[in-house]
Amino acid sequence: MRCFDSDAHRAHHPRDPIPDAGRLVPPPEVPERAERIRAALDDAGFEVTGPTRRDAPGLRRVHTGAYLRFLEGAHAAWRAATGMPATAEAVPYVRPLRGQPAPAPRHVIARLGWYSHDSDPVLAGTWSAARAAVDLAASAWDAVAAGRCAAAYALCRPPGHHAAADSYAGYCYLNNAAVVAQAWCDQGARVAVLDVDYHHGNGTQQIFYDRDDVLFVSLHADPAHEYPYFLGFAGERGRGAGEGCTRNLPLAPGSDWSAYGPALAAALGEVRAYAPDGLVVSLGVDTALEDGDSFRLVADDFLRIGEAVGGLGRPTVYVQEGGYDLDVLGRNVTNVLLADGR
Amino acid sequence: MRCFDSDAHRAHHPRDPIPDAGRLVPPPEVPERAERIRAALDDAGFEVTGPTRRDAPGLRRVHTGAYLRFLEGAHAAWRAATGMPATAEAVPYVRPLRGQPAPAPRHVIARLGWYSHDSDPVLAGTWSAARAAVDLAASAWDAVAAGRCAAAYALCRPPGHHAAADSYAGYCYLNNAAVVAQAWCDQGARVAVLDVDYHHGNGTQQIFYDRDDVLFVSLHADPAHEYPYFLGFAGERGRGAGEGCTRNLPLAPGSDWSAYGPALAAALGEVRAYAPDGLVVSLGVDTALEDGDSFRLVADDFLRIGEAVGGLGRPTVYVQEGGYDLDVLGRNVTNVLLADGR
Repeated sequence: MRCFDSDAHRAHHPRDPIPDAGRLVPPPEVPERAERIRAALDDAGFEVTGPTRRDAPGLRRVHTGAYLRFLEGAHAAWRAATGMPATAEAVPYVRPLRGQPAPAPRHVIARLGWYSHDSDPVLAGTWSAARAAVDLAASAWDAVAAGRCAAAYALCRPPGHHAAADSYAGYCYLNNAAVVAQAWCDQGARVAVLDVDYHHGNGTQQIFYDRDDVLFVSLHADPAHEYPYFLGFAGERGRGAGEGCTRNLPLAPGSDWSAYGPALAAALGEVRAYAPDGLVVSLGVDTALEDGDSFRLVADDFLRIGEAVGGLGRPTVYVQEGGYDLDVLGRNVTNVLLADGR
Repeated sequence: MRCFDSDAHRAHHPRDPIPDAGRLVPPPEVPERAERIRAALDDAGFEVTGPTRRDAPGLRRVHTGAYLRFLEGAHAAWRAATGMPATAEAVPYVRPLRGQPAPAPRHVIARLGWYSHDSDPVLAGTWSAARAAVDLAASAWDAVAAGRCAAAYALCRPPGHHAAADSYAGYCYLNNAAVVAQAWCDQGARVAVLDVDYHHGNGTQQIFYDRDDVLFVSLHADPAHEYPYFLGFAGERGRGAGEGCTRNLPLAPGSDWSAYGPALAAALGEVRAYAPDGLVVSLGVDTALEDGDSFRLVADDFLRIGEAVGGLGRPTVYVQEGGYDLDVLGRNVTNVLLADGR
C-alpha cells in the first residue's frame, strides 16, 4: 500500500464556528486530522511520499470551468468587495430563488451562494489546499493505474465527496474521489466508487448520476435523520443512462456492525457484480463509535472493512474523506489499510 | 389616510448576529422599528387602529400550502429535532443541489434550507407575527377596496417583499404586499405594485412574474452591488403572459434625488400607463441618507414620494417594508403619508 501526503492542506484551517443541527460548533475539519492520520501511517510502517502528479487528470471533467474559476478567485474577490482581512472566512448566505430567470450571478456574495450547498466558508488558503488534495488523489491513482501497486491511499484534506460538479459543501471543495474515477474512465476503464463515510456522498452521486461508466455505491446514515438530508435515499438509483448505477444503503444512526456488516456485504456484492477495472474507496472513518452522533464501529470493524475491500482483488485507490475524533481516526484509517493487505 | 397597527409583531424579535456582506451584525429588523413608526404616526395625528380582517384574503393564493404549513410548524419541529430551547433561532444552512432528483425534503433542517433563500432565522414567534402583519395589510386593503378611504397604511412587521411563493429571506416571511395585490385581483381588479424599498422586491417579482394582472415596478439599488444580488436587473421584464409586467429600475448605491427623482417619475409613468384599479406601495424607507449603505434621500424627498403617489389618484394601500435607522424612519414614513394628502 503506497500512501501520499503533503503539508499543503494546512493552508485551509477554518476556525469560525459553524452551524450543526441548531448549534454553532467549532469546525471539526482541521489540519490536526491529517497530522494524526499521518502519524498513524508512519507508526504502522507505511511508505508515505509526496505527490507525483500535479496535473490533476480528470479535475476539469469532474468540475465545471466556471466553478473552478470561482473557487480559485473567490476569497480574493470577496476581500475586494467587502474589505475584510486575509484571515477572514467568506461564508455564503444569499441564495437563488427556485425557478428564477437569472443566470449565475456576478457579485461574489451571490456567487458564494450559487456555488455552494451549505454554509461552509472559503478561506484564503482553501483553493491551494483543495487543489493539493487532488494532486494526492491523482498521485495515488497514478501509482495504481500504472501498475506500480495494487492499492494506494491518498491522505486528502479537505475531503471531497460532498463537492458536486459546481458546488461545494460539507467541508468539501474539490471531489478527490470523483477525480480519480474520472481519470480512470478517461483511460477507458469501468470504475466503481465505494463510499463508506458516515454521510452520504451527495457530490459524487450528483457528478455520476446520469452515467453508466461509474458505479456509485454508498453506505451512510439515513438522510432522513442526518446530513446531507436532501440526498442519499435508497430510491435514488441513477437517471437515464445511469439508471441502476447509483446504489444507496442508508442505515439508522447508531448502527453497529450487526447492521453495518450485512450492508457492507451487499455493497461489495454490487461492486463485484459491476466488475470494475478500478475501485475508488471514499474512506470516511466518522462511522466510529467515538465520533459523536454516528455509527458504532469499533477498531476491529475497520479491520473488517479493509479485509473485505482487499478481498475484492480490484486495483484500489483509497481517498480520505471524513473522521473527526482525533484520538481514533488515525488508528481506524490504518486498520483499514493494514487489513486490505496489499 | 387610515393606518393599521398591532403589537403582535413583538413575538418576532431576532437577536442573534446575522451575516451582512462579510461581517456578522446585530439583526436590524427589530420591534423598535415598528414602535418608532407608530410613535411618529401618533405624533402626526394619524388615526391608527387594530386589524379589522383576520381571514387573510389572498394569502393562500400567494404562498403555497406546503410553505405555509412549513412556516407555521418550523420552529416547533426544529426544537423537537434538535432539543434547542424556545428562545433559540432556527437558522437554515443546508441547501439542495442544483438539479438533484429529490423532492422537498423531510428533515426540518433541510426544510429550513429548502424554504428559504438566505440565512435568516425562524423564531418561535415568527409565524404569529408574520401572520398578524398579513392581517394588517388585509385590513388596510379592506378599507380601501370597500371605499371607506382612498388610501390606507399597514405598519407591517416583519416586512414582506423578499418572501416568494414558497421561500423566505431578507427579514420577510409572508409577502404582505403580494397578499394585498392578490386580494384585489380576486375581485377582478387590475393591480400595480410600486416597490420603493432600497432592496429589490425579489419575492414580489417572483410571485407575479408570469402574470399580466399585476404590474410590478421597483426602484432599488443595483443588484450587481446590493442584496438580493440575484434578481432586480433591468432585463427582467416578466415571462410568458407576464412579459412586460415587471419593470426594474436599478440605481447606483449612493444615489440622491437627482437620480432618484427621474427614476421615480419613470416608475410612476409605468403605473399610470397600466391604469390599475388599485395600487400597492411597498414602502421601504431604507433609502434614507442615514440608513448606512443606501441611497441619499432626505426628509423632503419622502414628501416628494408621497406627493407623487397621491398625485396618481389611484386607490392605494401602503405596506411597510424596510427602513432601519431608528431615528429617521418614523419621520420618513409619516412624510410619505402626509404628502400623499389623502
